[in-house]
Amino acid sequence: MLEISTEEYDNKKLFELLLTGVAPRPIAFASTVDSEGNKNLSPFSFYNAFGVNPSTLIFSPSRRGRDNTTKHTFENLKEVPEVVINAVNFSMVHQMSLSSTEYPKGVNEFEKAGFTQLPSIKIRPYRVKQSPLQFECKVRDIIEISGKPGSGNLIICEIVYIHIDEKVIDENGTINPNRLDLVGRLGGNYYVRASGKALFTIPKPLTTLGIGVDSLPQSVKMSTILSGNDLGQLGNMEKLPDETELISLIKNDVLRKKVSNNSFLHQYAKQLISNGEVYAALKVLLAFGN
Amino acid sequence: MLEISTEEYDNKKLFELLLTGVAPRPIAFASTVDSEGNKNLSPFSFYNAFGVNPSTLIFSPSRRGRDNTTKHTFENLKEVPEVVINAVNFSMVHQMSLSSTEYPKGVNEFEKAGFTQLPSIKIRPYRVKQSPLQFECKVRDIIEISGKPGSGNLIICEIVYIHIDEKVIDENGTINPNRLDLVGRLGGNYYVRASGKALFTIPKPLTTLGIGVDSLPQSVKMSTILSGNDLGQLGNMEKLPDETELISLIKNDVLRKKVSNNSFLHQYAKQLISNGEVYAALKVLLAFGN
Repeated sequence: MLEISTEEYDNKKLFELLLTGVAPRPIAFASTVDSEGNKNLSPFSFYNAFGVNPSTLIFSPSRRGRDNTTKHTFENLKEVPEVVINAVNFSMVHQMSLSSTEYPKGVNEFEKAGFTQLPSIKIRPYRVKQSPLQFECKVRDIIEISGKPGSGNLIICEIVYIHIDEKVIDENGTINPNRLDLVGRLGGNYYVRASGKALFTIPKPLTTLGIGVDSLPQSVKMSTILSGNDLGQLGNMEKLPDETELISLIKNDVLRKKVSNNSFLHQYAKQLISNGEVYAALKVLLAFGN
Repeated sequence: MLEISTEEYDNKKLFELLLTGVAPRPIAFASTVDSEGNKNLSPFSFYNAFGVNPSTLIFSPSRRGRDNTTKHTFENLKEVPEVVINAVNFSMVHQMSLSSTEYPKGVNEFEKAGFTQLPSIKIRPYRVKQSPLQFECKVRDIIEISGKPGSGNLIICEIVYIHIDEKVIDENGTINPNRLDLVGRLGGNYYVRASGKALFTIPKPLTTLGIGVDSLPQSVKMSTILSGNDLGQLGNMEKLPDETELISLIKNDVLRKKVSNNSFLHQYAKQLISNGEVYAALKVLLAFGN
């Protein structure tokens, strides 16, 4: 392992490491106004939700590392503590990137990036028409972490009004992630498109508590064929099979021949798991394993 | 658009909307200990980096919506304000999911989920050996947003020591996102694998300031063929082509025939953009557009 003690490490390199290592990050496309009503629109990926009651979104227009200056978004929020956080989907990502250009104060990034500005219902800043999901927020608090170059400014927001494009809602009345087609941010110039084949699902763990990987036989836990993901799925089974279930398997001569050593057995179990037959895999491993 | 006023909206539905709409989210796989040294390991996706100087990671083991109880991670951090935040990559995602099971206090999720615990250098909680990137952190502050069901608890962490698996570092000495192979969290049972074909790059906008979409001719901005992403790339060009460049194009009879109306012209420009020849597209649009 490469080891880094952060107190001896360069802030710029650490910043780049965070951008790559804390990923993929959601993007807050933040629309603000100053006290004179001048509009600003800029993307931030130090952003996430942090619970409800009150609904909390936090993003950070951080201080610039190179000269410790602050961004227009941050300055606007101190004058007018309101923001529309627009979600960013794949079809608007190049325009969003263009809007992150550091145009001089007073330049309207809606126009520069070719977005359509729509008035909000409850706050002064404008919404991005092209965004499929727009959160109108009031700023509850601003926390400046240290005031030093590269440091964060937490904008703690409460959502007061939400606009959702009906096109992203499916037959069940819920938002479909494939229709929403959000993009996330990684380090360097990288983005991820969070839809289609990049998505996968894992059923939530049992509320009845899975048996745990620690309940599996040693030969299974130490398998060179079964992966960590295989073990994780086996450990999520609700119970260990009982003797009756195992005996009926052991009587199956064709199967016994097929899994005549641990290598064949683990390969067969792995195949069952990849077909979604995890409990069947657990049974065969316990019936024929050494 | 579907319109929602949050003060009249159910907290549970709002929570689900945040999980789907603020995505993809990075995952903090948090290892903590209580004052007696009992270990806990649990994943949280209300998590992000928030700048350097000091390096700041924030995650939220939120209060449970159903009964307003707190999680073991939160309770441990009040006793011992230290945490290892382990990154989660694709090869460990099923074990991570299993560890999110609500086992009783005192159960070691390292064992339940089949992970290997390694001692840390600067803090008491253990690291997950299987994770390619491990941040040892001291907790600087804990902010309880409201104490109400479903509300966030901000754990504000400073990184003191970092472990990186050398396998994820490429020839240039930087972390390669494809080797790191992180997963992100969306709503419902959805995850995204942030590597391979799901990744794409957008060069950072010019520091010289792009011309902006507002500098493009009206017929280009209103095109039904060129998309928002096409316009965004055109607007990121450093300058509008000058007359000499356009005249030499206009003299090209073959080309003039090819783009004899705006529909052909825009299709041709779109093709150039998709081949990465954005400036060539801008020139042809200005030379032959009406």
